[in-house]
Amino acid sequence: MRIALDAMGTDGAPAVEVAGALGALEELEEEHEIVLVGDREILEAELARHEGVPRSRLSVHHAADRVLPGEKAASVVRKKPESSIVVALRLEREGHVDAVVSAGSTGAIMAASLLILRALEGVDRPAVGTMLPTAGAPVLLLDAGANVDCKPLHLKQFAHLGNIYAQDLMGVDRPRIGLLNIGEEPEKGDERALETYQLLSSDSSLNFVGNIEGREIIRGGCDVLVADGFVGNVLLKFYESVAQFMIGLLEGAIRDAKITLDLDRLFGVLDYSEYGGAPLLGVNGVSIVCHGGSPPKAIRNAIGVAAQAVRSDTVARIARELAALKTAREAE
Amino acid sequence: MRIALDAMGTDGAPAVEVAGALGALEELEEEHEIVLVGDREILEAELARHEGVPRSRLSVHHAADRVLPGEKAASVVRKKPESSIVVALRLEREGHVDAVVSAGSTGAIMAASLLILRALEGVDRPAVGTMLPTAGAPVLLLDAGANVDCKPLHLKQFAHLGNIYAQDLMGVDRPRIGLLNIGEEPEKGDERALETYQLLSSDSSLNFVGNIEGREIIRGGCDVLVADGFVGNVLLKFYESVAQFMIGLLEGAIRDAKITLDLDRLFGVLDYSEYGGAPLLGVNGVSIVCHGGSPPKAIRNAIGVAAQAVRSDTVARIARELAALKTAREAE
Repeated sequence: MRIALDAMGTDGAPAVEVAGALGALEELEEEHEIVLVGDREILEAELARHEGVPRSRLSVHHAADRVLPGEKAASVVRKKPESSIVVALRLEREGHVDAVVSAGSTGAIMAASLLILRALEGVDRPAVGTMLPTAGAPVLLLDAGANVDCKPLHLKQFAHLGNIYAQDLMGVDRPRIGLLNIGEEPEKGDERALETYQLLSSDSSLNFVGNIEGREIIRGGCDVLVADGFVGNVLLKFYESVAQFMIGLLEGAIRDAKITLDLDRLFGVLDYSEYGGAPLLGVNGVSIVCHGGSPPKAIRNAIGVAAQAVRSDTVARIARELAALKTAREAE
Repeated sequence: MRIALDAMGTDGAPAVEVAGALGALEELEEEHEIVLVGDREILEAELARHEGVPRSRLSVHHAADRVLPGEKAASVVRKKPESSIVVALRLEREGHVDAVVSAGSTGAIMAASLLILRALEGVDRPAVGTMLPTAGAPVLLLDAGANVDCKPLHLKQFAHLGNIYAQDLMGVDRPRIGLLNIGEEPEKGDERALETYQLLSSDSSLNFVGNIEGREIIRGGCDVLVADGFVGNVLLKFYESVAQFMIGLLEGAIRDAKITLDLDRLFGVLDYSEYGGAPLLGVNGVSIVCHGGSPPKAIRNAIGVAAQAVRSDTVARIARELAALKTAREAE
């Protein structure tokens, strides 16, 4: 198995990516290879700073260009055909690698993945899934920002995308699917939520557990949380900032009071880097997005997730499920 | 000035309400009176447990019934005409009191306020405002759950409701109005956000500061945050639960480590009870909603907010602003 890592994506590129790749190779079995995609000269210089690099499993594929922050996501493929993310995705489409991991701009990765890998049959809108830390197991929120103005049918597709992903990557046999809403009762919510509730509750192939309110998310009452990308994105970004804000207040207080409290351990459950990136679900390939601010650990974990998705044949399983869903819809 | 307090709303009613009312009377000037609305016998028994009750300023108005949790909000006025919240709002409509404070079901208070007090001319949808604690001054989020499926025009009205409220109750001369969105740029967002951005940015009577992302809320970059009630409600409930979750983790760790850290003081900024309830904005009267789980302090502060709104003549100022907005729209 070969995984392409866009080596120019993080704020600390390419050092973070190289360190993450080396960490991943230590954990993965021998048959896993990683292809660093980026400027060859820069990458070779970075690799030279490490000892004992297993070059048979860690190669460099040259990409002369990179996507810069603030560039228009939609035109990246056309305007930056030699950028690391576009080159990496072309390697995947052409079968040279089995998966792509990138910490570049989420919008650019999504747009490029859609154009290069294409959406699977039966998927109107691929979605970004993100792991939300909770008091229990983490919850897969999707869509976390790829799509706005979603229709109920799109949300139903998200539920199925998440259903397969949670089985393969989260180790949940029969994932509990929840719908983000403003009340528990079926009659609560906006038009989209009302109609989506009906679609999900009448779908016997899903383990739909009903509406999940804002305050219920953290209790971990579902494995997959379905939402329009507008709400999902606001929620995700808000979560990160609230946690950071509270930890910031605490750090000050702990310093002032000269006491010791291991916040990293205490709030480890909130550490996004544990969860290995956000999968783009519904495209014809494995494409994993990481935070721009990812540390090497997050890159390493994302590579692990990508490898697991390839091993589980998650994309083929999603393709079958969504194609069946489409056939059923057309037969109605 | 007379303020009616629905004495049967909190989880700890009527003890919490009576304690809150007594606290408020100590703070407010002599000319302020509070009318406790609820079962006379129960209320007199509760009052008898306190010494030195200033009965000239604290009276009881009998209401034989109360709204129970889970009752359908829309039919409360028709089915429970003698419930404490309905009786209190009738007192306000008939001019016997100047404001109503209640910790009953938000849905019931909204529905009853709309039916009894009525919406102001030019207000299509009254909104619930809620103070969100931030790293800076608190932010008024509206709508926090009264309305779903809002149109851009409704969001523009929310901006004006919040504008006046922030001037009168938050002491901000020229409130910064932000639009909750998934990106900073004007071209980001769903259809509603795109159109609302145009409406707000072309309204020279507002100090519109642009889009506010989920991660920016906590930084306090605006005074009034405009959102559809679906997103606002999810966000608000999520915020409360994340803060509780993190504080819960901390309390355990502090106990285990046998160290001392004053979490109440540290996270006092996150304490909702400081902010005195959520105003229902756009109705023809002052109607303030409190958490069902409010402590006496929250009731006391909500009464203080109600008194301030009456003193500032906030409702009349909102009425003028929204009527002018409507006239301008019709003239276009």
